[in-house]
Amino acid sequence: MRKDIIVQKFGGTSVADVEKIKNVARAVIREKENGNDVVVVVSAMGHTTDYLVKMAKELNPNPSEREMDMLLSTGEGVSIALLALAIQAQGYEAESLNAMQIGIHTENIHMKARITDIDTTRLELSLSRGKIVVVAGFQGVTEGNEITTLGRGGSDISAVALAAALKAKRCDIYTDVEGVYTTDPRIVPTASRLDEVSYEEMLELAQAGANVLHPRSVEAAKVHGVPMRVRSSFKLDNLGTLILGVDKMEINRAVTGIAADLSQARIVVCGVPDKPGAAAAVFTALADNKISVDMIIQSYADKVANTNDIAFTISADDTDKALEVLNGLKAKWNISKVEANTDIAKVSAVGAGMIGRPGIASKMFQALADANINIRMIATSEIKISCLVNKEDTKKAIRVLHDVFELNSNEIAEVKGTLPEDEI
Amino acid sequence: MRKDIIVQKFGGTSVADVEKIKNVARAVIREKENGNDVVVVVSAMGHTTDYLVKMAKELNPNPSEREMDMLLSTGEGVSIALLALAIQAQGYEAESLNAMQIGIHTENIHMKARITDIDTTRLELSLSRGKIVVVAGFQGVTEGNEITTLGRGGSDISAVALAAALKAKRCDIYTDVEGVYTTDPRIVPTASRLDEVSYEEMLELAQAGANVLHPRSVEAAKVHGVPMRVRSSFKLDNLGTLILGVDKMEINRAVTGIAADLSQARIVVCGVPDKPGAAAAVFTALADNKISVDMIIQSYADKVANTNDIAFTISADDTDKALEVLNGLKAKWNISKVEANTDIAKVSAVGAGMIGRPGIASKMFQALADANINIRMIATSEIKISCLVNKEDTKKAIRVLHDVFELNSNEIAEVKGTLPEDEI
Repeated sequence: MRKDIIVQKFGGTSVADVEKIKNVARAVIREKENGNDVVVVVSAMGHTTDYLVKMAKELNPNPSEREMDMLLSTGEGVSIALLALAIQAQGYEAESLNAMQIGIHTENIHMKARITDIDTTRLELSLSRGKIVVVAGFQGVTEGNEITTLGRGGSDISAVALAAALKAKRCDIYTDVEGVYTTDPRIVPTASRLDEVSYEEMLELAQAGANVLHPRSVEAAKVHGVPMRVRSSFKLDNLGTLILGVDKMEINRAVTGIAADLSQARIVVCGVPDKPGAAAAVFTALADNKISVDMIIQSYADKVANTNDIAFTISADDTDKALEVLNGLKAKWNISKVEANTDIAKVSAVGAGMIGRPGIASKMFQALADANINIRMIATSEIKISCLVNKEDTKKAIRVLHDVFELNSNEIAEVKGTLPEDEI
Repeated sequence: MRKDIIVQKFGGTSVADVEKIKNVARAVIREKENGNDVVVVVSAMGHTTDYLVKMAKELNPNPSEREMDMLLSTGEGVSIALLALAIQAQGYEAESLNAMQIGIHTENIHMKARITDIDTTRLELSLSRGKIVVVAGFQGVTEGNEITTLGRGGSDISAVALAAALKAKRCDIYTDVEGVYTTDPRIVPTASRLDEVSYEEMLELAQAGANVLHPRSVEAAKVHGVPMRVRSSFKLDNLGTLILGVDKMEINRAVTGIAADLSQARIVVCGVPDKPGAAAAVFTALADNKISVDMIIQSYADKVANTNDIAFTISADDTDKALEVLNGLKAKWNISKVEANTDIAKVSAVGAGMIGRPGIASKMFQALADANINIRMIATSEIKISCLVNKEDTKKAIRVLHDVFELNSNEIAEVKGTLPEDEI
């Protein structure tokens, strides 16, 4: 009978030096010893990418994306070979493979390609020979044999895509945190690690500012139904957080976690005429300039002049560009004023359990009001409620919400079974 | 009409840092501006290989050759992309390609593979689009998509093989010396650069200790009739030394250059019985232990006992192993004594012009005798005469021979045309 396949992924921090690579080898061998076939995906070592980018910029301030992909893909080439050597040193058979050798095919787009398909022939052959396969994350190859990279969160995506293609039992993302928490433990010391979270919740948490996983990898895992586990590279006995389909979970709580995003700016466009096409003109102009908009509120501001105020949030990095774009619309649409404010934060309560449970939003608003926190904007999805607050209120808002939704103790965080927490 | 193709090769020292890569880009563009199509082969940057080997050894004292090839091939991956970026920064179209993308096929042997064939489709396509193609030297790929490396002198071999496959006009090996000299200029300050040298002479010079080119690349150039030029990476106006078929040269001098090899040891096996199989036993035992033998002399030592002394030279590194092997034969063959001496040097006079010119050898022996230099052994080939001398006499021997064969002045070194020598 074929063994279960576990795909493991280790990021750049986990393979930053020789000692850390040895540690990764131990984690890999441990999974092999559990009786599984193991495919390990690794990123480039620590600061390799920064170093390569620096040299490239010195040679060419405007480097071509094709050559940057050629350059950066070498980083994983180093880490896979070193990890294979470290595993072999422990007496286990291992083989490193890059994206071109495997056939991790992508679109013909550089620096942010999407995987189109993975040829598993070579992988299956190596696994059938009992080998641990070490795969270069972050990279792919086009039909024309061009090397591509997958952009931010690329190695996580490689791991999930390999797990899907190989019908793996699980995709374990090893990282420097111990799992997904009810909120940031640096802000709320009683924050507890979640044993399970749904893809949907994880996506909302990720988009709401929890930096554990890139949303693209969670999305891919959801589409292919790959169970993921976020776990610690350094505490191997800790099982971390399992991410799986909401249909496979028993939902016992309304709110799973509290996330905050401090990287947004709030833009208010005042005096937009209340006539067809005005709001569309605003958002089309932003889209044409590749500025993504998150929360949107439109309010009747002046019933005499018959104009609206439109408020929305964007990435704070785009503030200057957005102001330039919007000021350019002023004359044509008689817009009275455009304002930007980066002293804001988006605080979100996320939970698949809020579906069909009324009262969660009002409980949230009341809790913030009781704490004298002013809510500037509100946005909701099926499993998320986000409130825009002043940046200075961020920590207080997180603590209040973490408390009101009873996320503080392990009991409420519903730990199933006993998780060993000791350092190894 | 198709343009002439020039293959250029730059070693690790020439691409050791960002500034040096910019310098290489200038040399490449210069050749492109001359109206040629250009294919550039580069090695890994400076000490990259040493750094990678160090990490590998820390992880695994006995690293697998397959993984070492995976690891080391990343070095050229970095330098090709950086050089392509540097060329693009000057406004020229360039594209880097690794061995797998091109199809530089090799035997399925790691760390010292031989190139079996090169698919020129991808290369021709890029050249036809006006691009400068930057190719990773030193590496290849097997039929099974395994990455291999070519061993010592690998990038030179890559360059010559590409030149042969593309029917290039010339293969220029850029290096930190200005060409091939009549002898080592550090020993004989009046040594002059040769404008032309034949493959055969270059091979003899290389094997006799001139470290400019690895014999494998010269051999490959000879087989495929690829004209090579050894020239300076830093003095681009200097044309260096052209290496070509002896049939294309006008031979005006008997001796082209003087080389010395200080890495040998002399072994004497005393009292080998003069009966069939005795000498064969000695050399078979050495061959079985992968010890290469260079010069051999057998002399009747003792006509009463009817035994011979056999003397030969080997690489000094093999001395201990050779003594062990030979002492193991003592009992069976009644060998009286085995001696080793590493205080020796092989000094050679090389020249295609000595064919059919008697008296060169006697002139050499007389010159050494006049200088009180004792000749321990002599070996000759069609275009080379080698004398084994005491190591302490090496420099004196080189100077005497350089002088007696009149290699000291430019007139005698037969410079054709005027070579600009100025620094640029």
